Amino acid sequence: MAIDPDHLLSMPPIVTRQRLTPRDTILYALGVGATELDFLFEERLQALPTMAVTLGYPGFIWRDPALGANWRKILHGEQSTILHQPLPVEGEIVGTTRIEALFDKGADKGALAMVAREIHDGAGAHLATSRSMTFLRGDGGFGGTSEGAPTPHPLPDRAPDAIVTLATAANQAQIYRLSGDLNPLHIDPDVAAGAGFDGPILHGLATYGVIGRALLAVRCGNDPARLRRIDGRFSSPVYPGETIETMIWDAKGSGDEGKLAFRARVVERDKIIFTNGYAETA
Amino acid sequence: MAIDPDHLLSMPPIVTRQRLTPRDTILYALGVGATELDFLFEERLQALPTMAVTLGYPGFIWRDPALGANWRKILHGEQSTILHQPLPVEGEIVGTTRIEALFDKGADKGALAMVAREIHDGAGAHLATSRSMTFLRGDGGFGGTSEGAPTPHPLPDRAPDAIVTLATAANQAQIYRLSGDLNPLHIDPDVAAGAGFDGPILHGLATYGVIGRALLAVRCGNDPARLRRIDGRFSSPVYPGETIETMIWDAKGSGDEGKLAFRARVVERDKIIFTNGYAETA
Repeated sequence: MAIDPDHLLSMPPIVTRQRLTPRDTILYALGVGATELDFLFEERLQALPTMAVTLGYPGFIWRDPALGANWRKILHGEQSTILHQPLPVEGEIVGTTRIEALFDKGADKGALAMVAREIHDGAGAHLATSRSMTFLRGDGGFGGTSEGAPTPHPLPDRAPDAIVTLATAANQAQIYRLSGDLNPLHIDPDVAAGAGFDGPILHGLATYGVIGRALLAVRCGNDPARLRRIDGRFSSPVYPGETIETMIWDAKGSGDEGKLAFRARVVERDKIIFTNGYAETA
Repeated sequence: MAIDPDHLLSMPPIVTRQRLTPRDTILYALGVGATELDFLFEERLQALPTMAVTLGYPGFIWRDPALGANWRKILHGEQSTILHQPLPVEGEIVGTTRIEALFDKGADKGALAMVAREIHDGAGAHLATSRSMTFLRGDGGFGGTSEGAPTPHPLPDRAPDAIVTLATAANQAQIYRLSGDLNPLHIDPDVAAGAGFDGPILHGLATYGVIGRALLAVRCGNDPARLRRIDGRFSSPVYPGETIETMIWDAKGSGDEGKLAFRARVVERDKIIFTNGYAETA
């Protein structure tokens, strides 16, 4: 079975309702290693902006046979999150998920699916837009085009303006998964070995949350309202316990105030694990 | 206002209903620092026996003015947990809490309240009995007696038969509190300073859970069904990040198979933090 682009692009949106509690908000923060009480203590609680990736999440949609994708060959390639307003720490959340675009890189390379999720609160306020670029490695050659696929955000060819080093804990993935992504790849050594890894790997979106903490700390004074957008590409996995160093470049052009480029590496292996990062701050 | 022993002992039991989820069970295990997948991974999940202390918990009952106690002067003195069968990892839980006995140590010393909680599942199966000895330091001299108060379990005067050293994480209390005890003493530096501590202290029952892990590992092969009882006295607080060393003595008398005495210290400060421990294993 192959994917049918007309079917995928015309499916009705998936609506996911969730009741968010302060406990969920704190657990997300612990899952990405936050240590500031503003993200951990219900009496002064604020939500980390990157928590949007867990809100109204419909689960891993590609495993549904009706979509026709070779789901075992799927990778999360890129993530973009736009914050329209600060996230609540509790309340009703509604996620509306659509397959927004499909690009064909050819039978040998695969297909790219852009999946967008609009996140609202129970009163209809627009909180955030989460957009994932999913790489369907087994589904290229469906007769489409790769034209219009988003291009990676370029990084400056100079030394970074800021560097932030953040540790992850040996049980980081075990905590993070309680925010909803229970893929055994992140806890079961046998599943991880079967996928070709030396051990369970950290969720890409947990790494993304750690990088978000870095941007928030050095460019937003840890005020969640000031981080408006965070985009980028997952380039290699992180193992729990490794140290993530985020390199940040401030955009220097006219009208570029608050725009950032960034990438991140694992210090212990000197390996770039997230690249082509782009963020907007206020 | 002073406590009225007749009133306290004749109050109707407090019935607390709870829906336990695998996520709760995993979060408890993370809260006491467990690293074994049997306690962290829903596909092979078992509940740690000491999780009983969080099940059907009515909250801190003494803050209710109707009880007449000087709640700010209360300390958790001792804890006993008897497991009637292995705990479930999910399902309905019913806790039935009673003030079982009151002992009067005199106006200068205080009162001791024995609070018992019977824990059942939704089908009525008896899971565990949790018994706390609460030290009401401001409520002695109510005209009662101290006769019949439980006596501490003696420890042998010889070298321990086993020693288990377990680390706690710097954020151990921040994780543990998500299992229900949100007392700010365990997260807010200002509250901790006001209570005379150098910083937020670990929950006594989190320490108790770490010690339970030690007993389970070296005397029960990490099989929760084999740990049947765990009693003892909190003697000093632990700070998150400190290392807890549990010293275990096997009872040697006839008919004493599986009975243990134990105490625990913080390695960094060489301070005994839990003593007069008694456990039963099978």
